[in-house]
Amino acid sequence: MAEVLSPAAVEAAEARIRAHVRHTPGMMVEGAAFGLADPVHLKLELFQHTGSFKARGAFNNLLARPVPKVGITAASGGNHGAAVAYAAACLGHRARIFVPTVSSPIKIERIRAYGAEVVVAGDRYADAALLSDAWAKESGALVVHPFDSPYTIAGQGTVAREWEEDAPDGLDTVLVAAGGGGLVAGTALWFHGRTRVIAVEPQGSRALHAARAAGRPVDVEVESIAVDSLGAKRVGELVHVIARDWVDDVVLVPDSAIVEAQRRLWSSLRIAAEPGGATALAALLAGHYRPRPDERVGVLVCGGNVDLTTLAALAT
Amino acid sequence: MAEVLSPAAVEAAEARIRAHVRHTPGMMVEGAAFGLADPVHLKLELFQHTGSFKARGAFNNLLARPVPKVGITAASGGNHGAAVAYAAACLGHRARIFVPTVSSPIKIERIRAYGAEVVVAGDRYADAALLSDAWAKESGALVVHPFDSPYTIAGQGTVAREWEEDAPDGLDTVLVAAGGGGLVAGTALWFHGRTRVIAVEPQGSRALHAARAAGRPVDVEVESIAVDSLGAKRVGELVHVIARDWVDDVVLVPDSAIVEAQRRLWSSLRIAAEPGGATALAALLAGHYRPRPDERVGVLVCGGNVDLTTLAALAT
Repeated sequence: MAEVLSPAAVEAAEARIRAHVRHTPGMMVEGAAFGLADPVHLKLELFQHTGSFKARGAFNNLLARPVPKVGITAASGGNHGAAVAYAAACLGHRARIFVPTVSSPIKIERIRAYGAEVVVAGDRYADAALLSDAWAKESGALVVHPFDSPYTIAGQGTVAREWEEDAPDGLDTVLVAAGGGGLVAGTALWFHGRTRVIAVEPQGSRALHAARAAGRPVDVEVESIAVDSLGAKRVGELVHVIARDWVDDVVLVPDSAIVEAQRRLWSSLRIAAEPGGATALAALLAGHYRPRPDERVGVLVCGGNVDLTTLAALAT
Repeated sequence: MAEVLSPAAVEAAEARIRAHVRHTPGMMVEGAAFGLADPVHLKLELFQHTGSFKARGAFNNLLARPVPKVGITAASGGNHGAAVAYAAACLGHRARIFVPTVSSPIKIERIRAYGAEVVVAGDRYADAALLSDAWAKESGALVVHPFDSPYTIAGQGTVAREWEEDAPDGLDTVLVAAGGGGLVAGTALWFHGRTRVIAVEPQGSRALHAARAAGRPVDVEVESIAVDSLGAKRVGELVHVIARDWVDDVVLVPDSAIVEAQRRLWSSLRIAAEPGGATALAALLAGHYRPRPDERVGVLVCGGNVDLTTLAALAT
């Protein structure tokens, strides 16, 4: 386990997935765009395949582990489902994605369009996950967990490796959104204390915050505008351990700040982010994270799967 | 004149405007995203201040030339007007922008929001330009031309300098949209034959194509989905001379290809481009420019001032 919980696991993931994922751009943005004194380095991971960082973890799972002929399975009505379906199609594997009935028809159609078999069943994510696990037991299919797998975490961590390589002046602190916590755990695993890692959660969806307070993963109620991507009820055990050791702080932001961050990304930069993708920036904009003078701050914009009509209504 | 028509003019512009413009990101995108065999390097200039490359030329004019107390003037209902208004506000100058009556209220409001005085008058761009020139004569205000000024051209050329610096494997050929031609002229001025420069125009707005055919700038009829940013009736004299010497070819694309390029940028990359911003890519997507095997092709995505509701309707 020591090895899968080290930066070397991220290195290994990077070598594995390099040919399959996009090297997404970073961009230094003047502080004035966000009402700040100092510039901010944005990592624009929303331009990744399938519109979010999730493609990294999906490819790492499929390339690091033996995939049986029956294929893979996952539970997700959102970005993870799309990423797993896409990675499976690229690598020639069958995929069966269990999608809770609450998922939007557009998202379900997207997963199907990537070539996966979609099973719409179960009221909520947890129900779909049970069905996915049951099917894996029955069929031998490989389960790709959305966050609490060492392969998922190390795969997501490759975004931090790229980011560090590209940030022209270095990074003192990075802000990263957390749902189930795979992305922030992977980021923290990579930086390993060299750079401060701040997790940002919606006030209404605070699984990581609650885990830190309780000293173990616990269930939380979930209600936020970012619930479609950050709405995990509970972080995983692995995520909890990594975050406890290597995430410096967990900051909570109200939904209003998330909407304002989406609005600002569009009006100042012409970047269309989904709520979860704008959550890390919300912490800076709303003053929930206040940088010191000259602190070199990075913000991860991690997803762009936003409905344009909804964004249009927000942005004007 | 020799000096203003050399790469040194772009170097000088870069030094002048560096502190005021964003260094926009480049991104290598796998060919599959666009139905091509080889990857394409996108220069994402749509994330520039005011949502287009126009900020570069605007700042270069204002920083290279003495600005009288009465301020500056320009004619534009679109990206140039917004960029000039923004640059003037940043540098503490007054700006009076003449906007033709056909311009959309949203764009007029944007120019006003940057702090400029907006005069809505004249049926078309040419009428607004006459009014702007007349006011400059009367008041002594500095005219910032949208394309046919050496300062505008050299300013726009700084995008090419950045691009060349950032493209990891070099660029054999770049595709750049043309309206009045300031951007493509600046790009060609910078590359000076080191990299092939292909201008791309809508079939319905082909001022550069017509100028090459006639051997001098001539008027064309203008009707295209990209008319709001590329709808010049005639290229300038300076643009014509530079393009004649240093632009390798001019390619025409139908509006349907421009819409498809907007759609693909959104569905594959989550990039929201305006029609003019997607026009260069349209030449590749629709096969109007066909790269050789292994040709290192770059595409400039030059503007993101798209109405999100319109894009939503296109993209689904």
